[in-house]
Parts: sequence; structure tokens; C-alpha cells
Amino acid sequence: MDKLYSLYYVLELAGTFAFAISGATAARKRKLDIFGICAIAFVVACGGGILRDLCIGALPPAGLTNWHYLVVALIATALTVGFFSLVQRLNHPVLFFDAIGLSLFAVTGAQKSLAYGYNGEVAVLLGITTAVGGGVIRDILLTRVPIILEKEIYALAALLGALIVVIGDHFKWGSGGWVAIAALTVCFTLRILALRYHWDLPTPGKNDTGSEKHN
Amino acid sequence: MDKLYSLYYVLELAGTFAFAISGATAARKRKLDIFGICAIAFVVACGGGILRDLCIGALPPAGLTNWHYLVVALIATALTVGFFSLVQRLNHPVLFFDAIGLSLFAVTGAQKSLAYGYNGEVAVLLGITTAVGGGVIRDILLTRVPIILEKEIYALAALLGALIVVIGDHFKWGSGGWVAIAALTVCFTLRILALRYHWDLPTPGKNDTGSEKHN
Amino acid sequence: MDKLYSLYYVLELAGTFAFAISGATAARKRKLDIFGICAIAFVVACGGGILRDLCIGALPPAGLTNWHYLVVALIATALTVGFFSLVQRLNHPVLFFDAIGLSLFAVTGAQKSLAYGYNGEVAVLLGITTAVGGGVIRDILLTRVPIILEKEIYALAALLGALIVVIGDHFKWGSGGWVAIAALTVCFTLRILALRYHWDLPTPGKNDTGSEKHN
Repeated sequence: MDKLYSLYYVLELAGTFAFAISGATAARKRKLDIFGICAIAFVVACGGGILRDLCIGALPPAGLTNWHYLVVALIATALTVGFFSLVQRLNHPVLFFDAIGLSLFAVTGAQKSLAYGYNGEVAVLLGITTAVGGGVIRDILLTRVPIILEKEIYALAALLGALIVVIGDHFKWGSGGWVAIAALTVCFTLRILALRYHWDLPTPGKNDTGSEKHN
Repeated sequence: MDKLYSLYYVLELAGTFAFAISGATAARKRKLDIFGICAIAFVVACGGGILRDLCIGALPPAGLTNWHYLVVALIATALTVGFFSLVQRLNHPVLFFDAIGLSLFAVTGAQKSLAYGYNGEVAVLLGITTAVGGGVIRDILLTRVPIILEKEIYALAALLGALIVVIGDHFKWGSGGWVAIAALTVCFTLRILALRYHWDLPTPGKNDTGSEKHN
Repeated sequence: MDKLYSLYYVLELAGTFAFAISGATAARKRKLDIFGICAIAFVVACGGGILRDLCIGALPPAGLTNWHYLVVALIATALTVGFFSLVQRLNHPVLFFDAIGLSLFAVTGAQKSLAYGYNGEVAVLLGITTAVGGGVIRDILLTRVPIILEKEIYALAALLGALIVVIGDHFKWGSGGWVAIAALTVCFTLRILALRYHWDLPTPGKNDTGSEKHN
């Protein structure tokens, strides 16, 4: 299991890297200054985990104590700013790593909540929070409706991943390692398929006339 | 007191239901997908309580651990989406339940803070937070200035309700039950009267010319 | 050191006062009602410290338990609303006190994190959070991109102040008092110089054509 853990850690840093690139790219497009770009990149990469740690009482949040995450986020930012036109062309690889980050954060978020002794509902909700929280904070800071609420199968993939972890834990299926790998695979595959085939969740009222007022 | 507690619990679920309807309605109007509608409904219903629990250290927050709230929020969402034109016509009943939710969350928020041993200021501030926090997060996610900051006597009613709980607790007026009922009544009545007679708080500078720049 | 502590406390209340004025001014310009103005003023003054206390587990947050902060914020609000045209002309004094608040909150935020036994990275990140968190929440509630992410050397000054505290603590330089005074001086001076000479951080892509789409 030690090898699996090391693999986890490397993949989690890869996910952090991808999330930070997505944050830095969005901030760069909004013409924030260099501090703002670093801040948004760090928030996307670590914000979800910080929210989770606040909710389970793992204080101070790991995203603040472990400098690896901060350094990875800053390196990702430097590369994004330095090679911006390249990063924009690399949209596909970035989405690929983003899907890895999504899967890993959903699974590790659910696992950490269970490890702290909380029930399955908490683990599923905080698995989703870990995976999508950073992106939601990014969109709030950039004053746009969080994209995960508007379209794309994104949070749903995280939900499935976290759910598999919780079900596997409940029924004590084999070693946790295999359940985690299954959860990662399902979440990652669903996300990649949704990207490839443009799967969206239904949007009630999409065909309404524009005459409704926002309330 | 056990009957009173059960009544509380039923009313709190009714408030959760009403808050979730208001969240689902707002999200539906903004054309979020079905996941986004569920997420906003849940956040409006449970967000205030989650903020309160983070502040008093009641971890993990009750909104995450008790599946009743989640299920009630999802049922409210399903009904809102399924019978949307009906729900829009039912604006008055929804506002009625919303006022119930506001009162109950203000009172139970203040009570829970006192029960955790915190002082009156904390109890009043967290009573307000419990009552209006979900609505504020909803408005942040939908990128609009929180409506409770712009107009309507809403948070003020919650403040009064929480304040009565704190004063009653300080002077040990009779059993907590009667104080709570008084607090609920005052908060609910003030909110309903404000709705009925369109009472607004004063808005300094309302008559300024539009030439001021936002800063 | 007791005199120093009292001085600290007075200066911290002065910073709270200045932050509350900046919040009340922004809310007044957006035509919020009187409750909304009080709420924004309180959030700007205490929001950063509340976020810090949530992260280090100092519950309930000091901003909620110590009524001095609330009263100072409400007095600042009353003065801002009552003498609005005067406050607008007093922009320079307000920015002066705001710089004092920024420096003090950065230094005390870092010190409190260290006092709770956390490492240097946590202390620096939470020093920044304490100093700029309130302003970020203000901008989120007013649905604008946080100004500190877009321009001006503001968070960077807070970062330097917090960093000096952490370095001084690490190397046990003399008494903590002198280190704190050095940190305050550097942070305050950098902020005032940045205001005076309009120093901005570089904004990558500032000269891009407007044809890029937000993503």
C-alpha cells in the first residue's frame, strides 16, 4: 500500500498542477495582476481541500500547512504566464489533468472524511466539495456563475467517485486500494466521455422565452 | 418539552423545504442545469446552519450529517422543477414558509450558540447568520448583490428573534420554550407585516444622482 | 510589553475603524439599505480575522465574541452615513488608516497563527488572509472582482509584513516587539509608497487585444 500511497501523492500533485493551470489561465484572461493570478491559481488548487478540512475539523487545513501544494501551484502559474499561448493550445492536456485532479480530489476527499469517523453522507458531500470547491471559489472571485452549476457533467462525476468509496467502505469490499482505483476510474472515465461527447445534464427551462425576469 | 421539540423539528424541516424552493426557483430562472439547481437549493436550505456550525465548532456541520435536510431539499427541488409554473403562482405560500424558516433558523441558531456556551453577541450574530446565510450564498453563487443587503426587512427580523432568545436566556425568563415562542412570533410577524406593507429600511443616498462612480 | 500590547489594541481598533469606513463607503455607493451598509462594514472590518480564526481553530472567532469590534464598526458606519460627503473628501486620511489596518492585521494575523503552534507557511498565508480577507468578502458581496487581485500593491505589502514576523520568530531575533514594529513599518511604508507613486504589480496580457473570450 505504500507504493499506492506514493502514486496517490504524485497524482494529487499532478491534479494540483492541472487545477492551478486552469485557475491561472482564467485569471490571466481577466487581466488580473501577477499577485491575483497566483492567488486564483492557489485557490483553485487548494480551495476545495481547505473547505473540506474546515468542515471535518482537520485544522489547520492541509492546503495551508504543506508547502508542496503552494510550490506546485506557483510553478504552474509561472509556466502558464510565461508560455500563455502554448498553454492555450494545450487545452486538451490541461482538461486531461483536470479530470485526473477531479477524480483524485473526489476520492481522497471522501476517504479523509471517512478516516475522521464521519458518516457516508458527509463523505460524499465533502468528496464533491473537495473536487469542485476550488473551481467554485475561482468563479465567485471572477464574478461569474460557477460553470459547474450551468453545464457539463463535472460534479456528477465527482459524486459517483465519492459514492463508490463510501459504498466500498460500508461493505468492506476487499482492500481500500482496489475500491479507490475503481472509484478513480469511474469518475475519470465519465468526465472524459462527457468532454468527448459533450454530455450535458438537462437544463429545465432551457427553451423558455427570455421574458422571465430574474428574481 | 418533547412535544415542543418535535414541533420544532417539523417546523425546521418545513423551513428547509421553503428555503430550498426559493433556491431552486432562483436557480431554475438562471437556467442552471439540474445539478446546479439541486446544489443551490441545498445551499440555501443548509448554508446558514453550516456557517454557524463552522463558527461554533460543531463539526461536522449538522446540515452535512443529517440526511433529512438533504432529502427534504431534494424533494423541494424536484417539486419546483416538475411544477414550475404552479410554484411561481404559489409565491405567497412560499414567502409564508420562507418567513417560518427565517424565524426558526434565527431562534434555533441563537439557541445552539448559547448551548455551546458562547456569549450573547455570538448568539445574535450567529442567529442572523443561520437565518440569512443560505440566501446570501445563493446570491453570491448567482452573482448578484445579496437581496437582503439591498432592501426588505429580513435580516432585521432575524436579529430581533435572536435578540429575544438571548435576553430571555440572560434573565432566565421562565422556561426556554416560552421565550422561543415569543421570539418566533415577533420575528415571523415582523417579516409578514414587512411583506404585506412593503416596509423597507432606509437607503441612504437613494436620491443621489447617478453620477457617482462605483469605487 | 504591556504598554506595547495596549498600543497594539488601540491601533487595531483604529484599523477596524478605517476598514469599516471603507466598507460602509462602498456599500453606500451601491445604494444598499442601512442594514446592508452595517453588514458590509462589519464584514470588511472583521471578515479577515474570522476566516483566520476558522482556519486555526480559534472558535468562536474573536470578531464575533469581542463586542468592541462590532461597536467600532457601527460607529464608523454611522459617521460614514451621516457625514458622507465629508468622508468622500477625506479619502486620504481613510487610505492612511486603511494602511494602518492592513499592516496591523497582517502582523497580528501571523503572530496569532504562530502562537497557536502552526508553521511559517500557515502564518504567512493567514497573515495575508487576515489583512485582505475582509476586503475580498466585501467585493464578493458587491459582485465585483476583488480589487486586490486586479491592481495595486496591497496584498504584497501584507505578505512582506507577515513574512518578517515569521522570519523573526524563526531566528528568535530579540524580543517579538521589535520584530513586529519592523514588520509593521515595512508593510505600512510599502503600502503608502505604492499609493503615493501608483505602483502596480505587472499585469500579464494587459496589452492583449480585447478579442480573447473569457472562459
